[in-house]
Amino acid sequence: MPEPMTIGVDIGGTKVAAGLVDASGEITRKSRVPMIAQDTAEAALECVKAAIDEIFAAVPEARAAVKGIGICSPGPLDPFRGVILNPPNLTCWRNFPLAAEIERTFGVPARVDNDANAAGLAEAIWGSGVGHTNVFFTIVGTGIGNGIVFDKKIYYGRTGSAGEGGHVTINYEGPVCGCGKHGCIEAYASGPNIAKRAQAKLRAGAKSRILALAGSVEAVRTEHVGEAFGEGDAVAGEVLAETARLLTIWLGSIVDLLEPDVMVMGGGVAQLMSSFFAKMSADLPTWAINKRAGEIPLVLARYGNEAGIAGAAALLKQ
Amino acid sequence: MPEPMTIGVDIGGTKVAAGLVDASGEITRKSRVPMIAQDTAEAALECVKAAIDEIFAAVPEARAAVKGIGICSPGPLDPFRGVILNPPNLTCWRNFPLAAEIERTFGVPARVDNDANAAGLAEAIWGSGVGHTNVFFTIVGTGIGNGIVFDKKIYYGRTGSAGEGGHVTINYEGPVCGCGKHGCIEAYASGPNIAKRAQAKLRAGAKSRILALAGSVEAVRTEHVGEAFGEGDAVAGEVLAETARLLTIWLGSIVDLLEPDVMVMGGGVAQLMSSFFAKMSADLPTWAINKRAGEIPLVLARYGNEAGIAGAAALLKQ
Repeated sequence: MPEPMTIGVDIGGTKVAAGLVDASGEITRKSRVPMIAQDTAEAALECVKAAIDEIFAAVPEARAAVKGIGICSPGPLDPFRGVILNPPNLTCWRNFPLAAEIERTFGVPARVDNDANAAGLAEAIWGSGVGHTNVFFTIVGTGIGNGIVFDKKIYYGRTGSAGEGGHVTINYEGPVCGCGKHGCIEAYASGPNIAKRAQAKLRAGAKSRILALAGSVEAVRTEHVGEAFGEGDAVAGEVLAETARLLTIWLGSIVDLLEPDVMVMGGGVAQLMSSFFAKMSADLPTWAINKRAGEIPLVLARYGNEAGIAGAAALLKQ
Repeated sequence: MPEPMTIGVDIGGTKVAAGLVDASGEITRKSRVPMIAQDTAEAALECVKAAIDEIFAAVPEARAAVKGIGICSPGPLDPFRGVILNPPNLTCWRNFPLAAEIERTFGVPARVDNDANAAGLAEAIWGSGVGHTNVFFTIVGTGIGNGIVFDKKIYYGRTGSAGEGGHVTINYEGPVCGCGKHGCIEAYASGPNIAKRAQAKLRAGAKSRILALAGSVEAVRTEHVGEAFGEGDAVAGEVLAETARLLTIWLGSIVDLLEPDVMVMGGGVAQLMSSFFAKMSADLPTWAINKRAGEIPLVLARYGNEAGIAGAAALLKQ
């Protein structure tokens, strides 16, 4: 009998990526198809099916081995029923029963969730959270999201909307977040907002390599800040040190509320911030009444770009 | 066979209260002894035993019916081992195995926890949280603490220190909290800090009944604010409306992170704030990206002054 496998599918704005994932969380085969035909719900579904079919075509023995298919999809969605509700970036799916459609087509159980929940679960089961009961996963990229995983199970909350810790406000008089609230950690420390804080420094006259790398103040992205930081640029160092401080303030509140066993950080900005993790851990007791806050490991996620695929596959392991 | 009962013991700064609690959470008999002899660990323990003995003396059939004894104690403490670590207000107990001592003396299982965890559990099992899976309990009094109860079990975190949501900061540039952090919700909305904000208004020249009730600005306590509010005083109304707003901001973050099924509020200040609960629920979606945040019931706790006794008894029901 072949080793049981799962397929993880990651639906992005422009492509669908799928992967065959083994029992240790290794992605042994990948596929990728463009997410083009989005006029109708069926056309978008065909893209998802195509990515899965490509895996089966490349690895025929996967037909028998695959015991389930997990999908990371743009939300909002209902993870309990596997229904995509009304995603702003995928308007053709409205109350679309994605899990049921995939189950019907491929004859195996299917699960649907958002990227932060799924990636957090993958870290808890296969990644940097292994060996810990209460895993607090943070994805820092265009936004900030969380996967709260207790005992290898995603904590969902009342309607499946828990884990939006990116919108915990650290300053109710702070900058307006994309969500409309003030001072959410996302409004300070997401990729675009790190870039925005760098831009503000440049506009205020700071001399930095960031400007040369980006070409113009308007063109500054987090990548330029990261690159300048790698070259020893002081302004970039300041921007990231501030980001680390703001994330520490936020994590201090999380620790006082939830005292997780481990804090795992993933997403595009996490790698960049990881050089500050030791300092953040050292400073954490300043921003937590929990004097042992510094003992809680703060670690980089195992999965980088493949977090969506691994996370989707992990959904079948709950 | 008699109905199984539990005894709940609430250790305060100046007294020990105990109660006989039936299977529905009703407190059928109470005792109260002064907490005087605190020179030695043994003397303090004797006060606890005396409160329990008084129950057994008054209700002889309780000897057979009582299946366990729970205790709310000043912390920090280790709820897993039932050990009191080093309470600042009860210095004679250092690494004191309170649960083991009580078990040895009375021959039934004993559990120890802090007041917020215990009271939250009592609300989940017997009180305003009944029928809900994820209960977020807040005690607002001298401080602000939480009991996070999932599936009728206290969520403890790594070392038993979870549930300190009173120290979630809502403004990292805000007033210094007793804990040393800035802008904790406790630094705004605990009883003493509500009084402090009222005092600031009076010092700034506000005319209010609060002053006449308290006698002097320095003597203002939350009770005076509450009394003036009851008499229709505008300044008291402002202070409490601001408190409600700050609590709403804080609850918005809690909802985005945890999306509980119910939010229960207890403690000395909760009753006073309860006239703002409807407004807080209505405003909650402004401070949560969860647009259904307003659907989550925000309710007053069942237990008032007896929360410690009921909570302690509930510890045996986990």
